[in-house]
This record gives sequence, C-alpha cells and structure tokens, in this order.
Amino acid sequence: MKKYAEIYSLIKDMILSGELQAGDKIPSVRKTAANYNVSVTTVQSAYFELCADGFIIAHSRSGYFVSNIAHNPPAEKHVDVQNNIIYDLSGGIADEESFDFALWQKYIKSALRQSDRLLSYSEPKGEYDLRCAIAQYIKEKRNVITSPDRIIIGAGMQPLLHILGSLLDKRLCISFPDKSFALGMGVFSDYGFDVHIRDKDADVIYVSPSHMTRWGDVMPIKRRLELIEYSRKNNSLVIEDDYENEFLYNVKPTPSLYALGKDNIIYMGSFSAMLLPGIRISFMVLTKELTEKYNQNAFRYAQTAGKTEQIALCSYIRDGRIQSQTRKIRRIYSAKTKRFACILKELLPDAEIEIGENTLQIILKAQWNQPLEEFEKAGLKVFTEKYEADRITLVISPSGVPKGSLEKAAQVLADVILCKA
Amino acid sequence: MKKYAEIYSLIKDMILSGELQAGDKIPSVRKTAANYNVSVTTVQSAYFELCADGFIIAHSRSGYFVSNIAHNPPAEKHVDVQNNIIYDLSGGIADEESFDFALWQKYIKSALRQSDRLLSYSEPKGEYDLRCAIAQYIKEKRNVITSPDRIIIGAGMQPLLHILGSLLDKRLCISFPDKSFALGMGVFSDYGFDVHIRDKDADVIYVSPSHMTRWGDVMPIKRRLELIEYSRKNNSLVIEDDYENEFLYNVKPTPSLYALGKDNIIYMGSFSAMLLPGIRISFMVLTKELTEKYNQNAFRYAQTAGKTEQIALCSYIRDGRIQSQTRKIRRIYSAKTKRFACILKELLPDAEIEIGENTLQIILKAQWNQPLEEFEKAGLKVFTEKYEADRITLVISPSGVPKGSLEKAAQVLADVILCKA
Repeated sequence: MKKYAEIYSLIKDMILSGELQAGDKIPSVRKTAANYNVSVTTVQSAYFELCADGFIIAHSRSGYFVSNIAHNPPAEKHVDVQNNIIYDLSGGIADEESFDFALWQKYIKSALRQSDRLLSYSEPKGEYDLRCAIAQYIKEKRNVITSPDRIIIGAGMQPLLHILGSLLDKRLCISFPDKSFALGMGVFSDYGFDVHIRDKDADVIYVSPSHMTRWGDVMPIKRRLELIEYSRKNNSLVIEDDYENEFLYNVKPTPSLYALGKDNIIYMGSFSAMLLPGIRISFMVLTKELTEKYNQNAFRYAQTAGKTEQIALCSYIRDGRIQSQTRKIRRIYSAKTKRFACILKELLPDAEIEIGENTLQIILKAQWNQPLEEFEKAGLKVFTEKYEADRITLVISPSGVPKGSLEKAAQVLADVILCKA
Repeated sequence: MKKYAEIYSLIKDMILSGELQAGDKIPSVRKTAANYNVSVTTVQSAYFELCADGFIIAHSRSGYFVSNIAHNPPAEKHVDVQNNIIYDLSGGIADEESFDFALWQKYIKSALRQSDRLLSYSEPKGEYDLRCAIAQYIKEKRNVITSPDRIIIGAGMQPLLHILGSLLDKRLCISFPDKSFALGMGVFSDYGFDVHIRDKDADVIYVSPSHMTRWGDVMPIKRRLELIEYSRKNNSLVIEDDYENEFLYNVKPTPSLYALGKDNIIYMGSFSAMLLPGIRISFMVLTKELTEKYNQNAFRYAQTAGKTEQIALCSYIRDGRIQSQTRKIRRIYSAKTKRFACILKELLPDAEIEIGENTLQIILKAQWNQPLEEFEKAGLKVFTEKYEADRITLVISPSGVPKGSLEKAAQVLADVILCKA
C-alpha cells in the first residue's frame, strides 16, 4: 500500500469506528506528517482523497473537520449516577450553609500570593508549617501529643494507607470493623495482607472509635482501654481512624486511643468532613519506629495533597477558624438530624427510629417488602444496612438535604416505606 | 496509686520527656477529666500538685502552662534541606516568570463559586468535564484518541500507579528505564511485582519516550515502532509516561506511542510541570480491558486530586490557556538552558557541555577530584549522573534560576569545578 493510502485508511477507520466524531477537528497536515513520520505532501494527498470521499470537510484557515458521513453513534455516554436523585440521604454530601466559601477563598487567595513557595514541590511529608499547625491542633483537641516530624499529610485516607502498607510487613494480618471499609481493605489486600473482619488477634487492628457502627455509635472508654491493653499484650499495632470525632464533642467526649495508649497507635484524621468533601487533606501520625522507616525511604514518596490548599489550611487552623467551623457544622448537622428524626417519627409511627450517638445518622427499622429500586424511583438515595424477612434497616443521614427541604424529603421517604409512592 | 497521682505522673512524664514543652498550654481540667474518665476534682488535685512542684504554672482565666523547670530540649528540629541552597540546578523548581498567578487565581475563584459541585465528593475517576477536556486536549496534541470513560485522574503519578498496580496481576515482571524512577519502582515492588531495569521481555514495560535519558533525550521514531511491534508480539503492556513531551514541540515532534500502537498502551500525563509543581493533577488512559476491570472495582478507589483545582483546570484547558502556557514555558526554559550552556562554555572551555534534546537539561562532563559536598558548600544543588576516576558528569537544569541570576549561578558552578571556590 502506498503511504498516502495508509494515512487515508487510518483516518477513515477512525471515523467509521467512531473514534473521530462528526464535527471533530482532525490533526493538521503538518502534525500528522510529523506523527507518522511521512512527508507533508503524502498527508495532503490523503486528506484530499478523504475530502473527495466525503469523510472530512476542509474549512479554509481553520483546518479539516470530520463530516457526518458515518452517522457514527455518539461517544460512550456518561452515566451520571446522581441523575435521578432528588434527596441524597446516604451521607457524604455537605450542606451549602455549612461552609463559608467566601472566607475559604480569602485563604486560598492569600496562599496563591506565596508564589515563591508554590514554585517548588512539597516535601514528601507535606508542608512543614501545616504539620506544625496540625500537631498543635490535635494536641489541644484530642490530646494527641506528637512532633510534626511524625505527621504525614496526604490527599485523603487512601494515599496514606498506601504509605502505611508499604512500611509494614506484607504478610501481616489486618482486621477491619466491617465490610464498609472497602477503600482501606482494598489497599491492604492489594499489598498481600491477610484481611480479616473484627479479629482482635490480628497483627494490625484498624478501628474507627468515634464512628464504630455505621449509625455513628461511639466506642465506650472501657472498650478503648481493653483494646489498648490487649493490643499491647499482643504486640499488635492499632490504626485509629478518628473519623467524625469532631461531631462528638457535645455528645459524649471520649479520649482518643492515641492519648490513652500511644506507643503502638497510628492516629489518622481528615479535614474533608469539616471543610468540603473535595478538599483532599488528611494526615496520619506514625509511630516512632515507622517514622524512622519512612525517613529512610522518603525518596520513594511524593506528596499528594495540593500545595495551595495545604498553605491555606495552615493559616485557617492557626487563625482558629477550624474550631468555629467545627462548632458550626456540628450545630447545623445535629439540628437537622434531630428535626428529620422527629418528622419521620410522626409520619411513620410504626417504625423504629433512633438517632446514632454522634447525631449525624438516623437508624430506621420498618416492615417492608418492596424491591429496593423503589427508593431510587422516588428520587431517594439511601443506605440499606439490612433487608430480610420483610424488614428493612436503613441508615439515614440528612446532612446534605437543605434545611427547607427536610419535610419534603421525609415525606417522600415515608411514602416509599408506606408503599404510597 | 491514687487516681490523682496517676494524672500527676502522666503529665510530669510528658514534661520531662519533652513531649510537652515550656510554654505549652496543657489541656483544661474539664478536658483531661473527660479524656481519662476521672472526676474534675481528681484532675484539679493533680494540677494543684503539679503547680506546687513547679512543673506547670496557672494563668488566671487562660489555663495552665508548662513551666521551664525541665529545661527540656527543643522539639526535634526541622531540617530544611533547601536551607543553604542558593541556586537549585537540579530541576523540579519552576520559574516565577513562567506562571501567571493572577490568571490562575481567577480560575480558582470561579471554581470556588460552583459551591453546589464542591459540596459532594468527586467521582472516583475524577470530574467528568475535566476528563472530557483532557480527552480533547490529548487528541489534538498527542493524537491520543480515547473516551473520557477511560481517563482516570489522580493527585500525581504515584496514586495512579497504585490504581494500576491494583488492577494488574501481582506476579508480573515490570521493566523501568533506569533507577531514577524510584517512585514508580517503589509502588510496583510493594505490590509484589518483579521489578527489572531495561528488560524488553518484561510483561509490563514502563517508558518515558519524551525524556528517555536523564538529560532529556527523545526516543527516536524507529525505536518507538520497534517497541510497539515487540510488545505486541510479546503480548506485553506498555506504560507510556509522556513526561516533558510538552517541551519537544519545536525541537523534534514525535508521535506518542499510544498514537502508534494503542491497544496495549497505557498513556500517562501530568499538568504539574506545565503549571506549578504543587498543583497535583495527573491522568492516565487505561486500556479497554483495564477500564472494565476498574469499573467493576470503582468502589475501591477514592479520587485524590482536589475538586477545586480540577474544576479550575477544566476551564483553563477549555479556554485554550494550556497551549499558550506551554508555548510560554517552552520559550522561557529553552532560552535559559541555551543561555546557561553558553556562559558555562565560556567559563569552562575544557569541559564537555551539551544540551539535551528537549532543551531543558545540560549535560556537563569535566575533570574533577573534590568531594561532592563542595557543591552544597557553595550553595548549589546539582544532580550528579556519574563520578568516577577524577571525572564528573552533571545533569544541570537551570529552569528554576531567575533570569537575572544565570551569570552568577554559572560563575559559582564554574568556580567549584575549577576548584576556585
């Protein structure tokens, strides 16, 4: 086959296969020539033929475009899972009211002014001043006393668990509270760990004591002390994911495991729930031994959290904004949960409705025998904890529903449960 | 031991061990009581004793502070590796001139206005509109034709390689070009892959064709075609890290391996080098097979890149800013490299000085027999490629040195090489 014919059929195939869509601009003659290491003339001949055969159209000065000759189907369509959801009661969504965007923007703006800092890569552990601010913050708030050197910042829990997994012996056995910790379980099973559920004799025990059950129950102090004693005796490592501890303050203050135990505990926290889900900044406090191992291998890790947001968050914490944000968000979310539970109780007098200890989630148990799709059909996203023998248990988190829509959302939910939908 | 005595010795130990430093505020009576599940009176007694013994000082209304009784040493000091460096010639630093901070701030500001989007988590693959914009961008620029469904965004290359590692069979053999790919090699060896250097018979071949050597040589088209043919015959997977391809445009346009091969190629790119090192947004194009595997396991992955920056980058690309930024950065960096090489040649007539093909790096070979610390002593950070038998090979990247300081930096470097320092 001649070279120009090769280019011709290459482009033609792309159009017919749908890789190039009607209206797409195709690469310029010069570019294609360079790409396939052929002469400009060769490409010109090929494009000329393609025009002649109606596959492409030349627009003077702006180049060549794919015609609609092939009537090719539109590219794979993006399925937006949120599409039909009117009320998301599954958690993980923040309330617009809960975050001061204008204030955060000021901090971001001021961070972007520190251009000299932004021109270089972050230290592998993360920005030093942010690590200092976090050390101070967790000391005051959770009695977690550590040096910034032992704090590692990352873009969410998963990158941190990857680092942790790479620092630990791969053949260890790790225990998780339940199957909902899919992200963490995935990381460790990929690394070749033996992943168990609720195994107190595991070498590594992952716990989330401020959010022990899916409906936000808290690990009592007695069990915390038992866990620490047992893990020490067993020489096991405890990963304390202090998820949602911020919401417990007024409810039931509980010490962190780290403050009670310390030597064999890795403390982890995140700012996403306090600020915005899309701000990916989490941290972990390594044990002394693992910090040394990390330091020896620092060249193997790149910081994942964005530098601008790290700089902004540092000032935000130093200015005490995180405390007022925590108070605000706690107030808003707990009021919503209580209100929502109250409305539900009125609408569903026969159901069992309880608020979890951290006042973020509601647990609802009711008689029901419809297909689970009914919730989505009604525009609801809910988390089903259990569904068997005509009885359903839902974990409901109304935090993402705007205050003014709570009644409406509760009504829709009640209608589905009562089969009135 | 009485309970108050326990609290007493706990705090005392923290002070003596240096965990609590002179001037630190210690947790309030109420907080400590809650933390250790003891009564407020118990803590008050303990604090009273600590005051009496001079370990802490009470300030009326503001609480208790650690005294300087223990003369405890300052907390582990932060070693700033950049401390004595005046000129960083090792690359990885951007030039202030190269980035329009005010413009980027406008895009960030506009992203922060999209509060409804920022209230929820990103899709695991990353924001859909950014993936569309990237698909369009790499199609025009690198002839990489793919659908947004196959694009995965991540906070840098490492989180993406973690995903890739988890999708591939762990017992495979993977090959890297040389030992400088420590981040990637670390990920795969942690996953249990067999990591080789330059092994064309490996199951997975990681290449960086636009930056084939440390001094930026480019893989010739002939070798690209050979690699594709060989990998296809061998049924191996190729990971094409298109690092620094942006700088090649005017020098020697080369097609991406993806455009030449496609089916068995994973294409990877990053925006950090084009924008700012602290903006952590990279992406990879998975093969069809791996995309399906990813889709089945999407619940196991959380998006690592920050949402605000993803939204900002999407508009930045759509507005064509990335092209002008690329042109600008290419112009600035290549001018600097040429200028720096020119000055060095004058100052070091006996040295071999060459510019790498992508005009970002200079390779310098000279007679030398001093300890390597001499560079740091003179305030220089350089990358030593080779040093043996009184001959040193340096890879120098002047991109981070301000334009006005090029002469000065070259002079300092020449003085070290000529032992005049």
